[in-house]
Amino acid sequence: MVINMYKKSNKILVMYYSKTGNTKKLAQIIAKGVEEVKEVECILKAASDVSKDDFILSSGIIAGSPVYFGTMAAELKDVFDRYVNVRSKMGDKIGAAFVTAGDESGGKETTIMSILQAFLIYGMIVVGDPLDATGHYGVACTGRPDKETSENAIKLGRRVAQLVNKVTFSPP
Amino acid sequence: MVINMYKKSNKILVMYYSKTGNTKKLAQIIAKGVEEVKEVECILKAASDVSKDDFILSSGIIAGSPVYFGTMAAELKDVFDRYVNVRSKMGDKIGAAFVTAGDESGGKETTIMSILQAFLIYGMIVVGDPLDATGHYGVACTGRPDKETSENAIKLGRRVAQLVNKVTFSPP
Amino acid sequence: MVINMYKKSNKILVMYYSKTGNTKKLAQIIAKGVEEVKEVECILKAASDVSKDDFILSSGIIAGSPVYFGTMAAELKDVFDRYVNVRSKMGDKIGAAFVTAGDESGGKETTIMSILQAFLIYGMIVVGDPLDATGHYGVACTGRPDKETSENAIKLGRRVAQLVNKVTFSPP
Amino acid sequence: MVINMYKKSNKILVMYYSKTGNTKKLAQIIAKGVEEVKEVECILKAASDVSKDDFILSSGIIAGSPVYFGTMAAELKDVFDRYVNVRSKMGDKIGAAFVTAGDESGGKETTIMSILQAFLIYGMIVVGDPLDATGHYGVACTGRPDKETSENAIKLGRRVAQLVNKVTFSPP
Repeated sequence: MVINMYKKSNKILVMYYSKTGNTKKLAQIIAKGVEEVKEVECILKAASDVSKDDFILSSGIIAGSPVYFGTMAAELKDVFDRYVNVRSKMGDKIGAAFVTAGDESGGKETTIMSILQAFLIYGMIVVGDPLDATGHYGVACTGRPDKETSENAIKLGRRVAQLVNKVTFSPP
Repeated sequence: MVINMYKKSNKILVMYYSKTGNTKKLAQIIAKGVEEVKEVECILKAASDVSKDDFILSSGIIAGSPVYFGTMAAELKDVFDRYVNVRSKMGDKIGAAFVTAGDESGGKETTIMSILQAFLIYGMIVVGDPLDATGHYGVACTGRPDKETSENAIKLGRRVAQLVNKVTFSPP
Repeated sequence: MVINMYKKSNKILVMYYSKTGNTKKLAQIIAKGVEEVKEVECILKAASDVSKDDFILSSGIIAGSPVYFGTMAAELKDVFDRYVNVRSKMGDKIGAAFVTAGDESGGKETTIMSILQAFLIYGMIVVGDPLDATGHYGVACTGRPDKETSENAIKLGRRVAQLVNKVTFSPP
Repeated sequence: MVINMYKKSNKILVMYYSKTGNTKKLAQIIAKGVEEVKEVECILKAASDVSKDDFILSSGIIAGSPVYFGTMAAELKDVFDRYVNVRSKMGDKIGAAFVTAGDESGGKETTIMSILQAFLIYGMIVVGDPLDATGHYGVACTGRPDKETSENAIKLGRRVAQLVNKVTFSPP
């Protein structure tokens, strides 16, 4: 008899705002990384479709935005602002971020940090890219995700999922 | 005969999003500081009322938000995002920020920085509090503005207005 | 027979730079919070005494600095810079930050963020204050730690220690 | 008779910490941009050579660092920390930043922001890249400055110098 010591099917929410489709594409790749990990279920949603229950029931959230003037787009920020009253239920969940930019000229890192700061205020645990990826604070690309970005995206999704399993694990 | 060497009536936009009224109150005090300075006209508006022309015709913008999860509220961010196509006309205008928080526990500085980053990406010149105020990056308070905050607010408004006059000045 | 399923004695490094003694005092309180947790050993050291082995052998690092011009003091930054060549061994360790300021006027949050950014680049997992504390990004106080700060400090130390136990745990 | 209405020879300090020589090279290019502007003298110095008088007598400071763990190198931070007692003399000077990274993987923007935050706390006026450059918060490159970075560097130097002339100008 095998006992599943992990909480059955941890949920990870991958939420994004996407105008051109690039951020949505990146979200889909991250979701694939999440689903590589056993016992984890990925919920992939546009920011406008995210419900309060998606927030409460997820053990991890990976949030993405285009780079708009150095912080996340208003449409994504609106989700964080809207669910302020469930903050007390978010402690110790895992958070991570991804962004896409229209051009090389900057704002990616400050946009990622704006998302990570929201997670920290929600009482969550925050991760950036794992050491075997090429980024630092989270996945970022210019335009459509290329091969390297896609690999980084898989790695970030996988990292969050694995950490969720560790953090939600209770010894039998 | 006196020649007015300053560009007649520089406009400074004080824009805010306010839910409880505290950020609006702080905006009104900053506007007073702006209007103390000669040759400057203050335009005081809620974020939702700010037009593209308000952006283009102002020589300085002072923007305020409640502290919501460590960055500006979605309603204020939306203004920056919305006017991306006038970015090329915003270079060398002056920008500054103010915030109000519901409690002491933090996010004020990162919220101010999120606003200043937007100004920098708009190509603007950025200031925080002058040295004779008690803050650093911009005016911040918890709850309703008290006496010290009000003095800092006056000083920030005045600083931006004086700098606008310097930067827009053309020797005769 | 009882099997200890936790890695025997996880080490947590509490490192600080302190000029006036306030940051050292806060470090000592955080260390108490760490030591409340079973199976965890706290190593409390001034930044200048931290060795490469302290970095490598710790499963978590809590780093503190006075607020000097909005980022960590040069003396603390120097530790992060110095051990760049052990970065590959730091992934998935836990990081958290604390700061003390000379006056109320700001820079605490950006100083904390400067420390958390260093941890993220080291590939580490980052936490701020737990939801039952009054801060967000990490423990901060003005002058000597008072009662509330001390409680927050205990909570941060405990949070990091508990998370270290979870993350380093291997099912038998 | 021509009257020079500008304060004779405004000084601009370009200071840098450089280990590999890349940041020094970028500093030299920025200095060229500064010197293109009339009535401005550029003082180019390694961080360790910067004196208190360099701080006090300059009307603008452009500071550069390699990207080390997401904030400026300890050697540059040390200059800001060291001259805390001349802070009261720094108000309304102009500040800008530049960085070089060893690889593409990030930390440039947060390193630039760490420098700009120090300037804001010194009471200074802050600028990033002008709109005709390709960056936002300040000049950044990976490795040795290439053609595009060099053009951006010239533009940043020139922008700071021109703004210094405007801000220090007193109508006759």
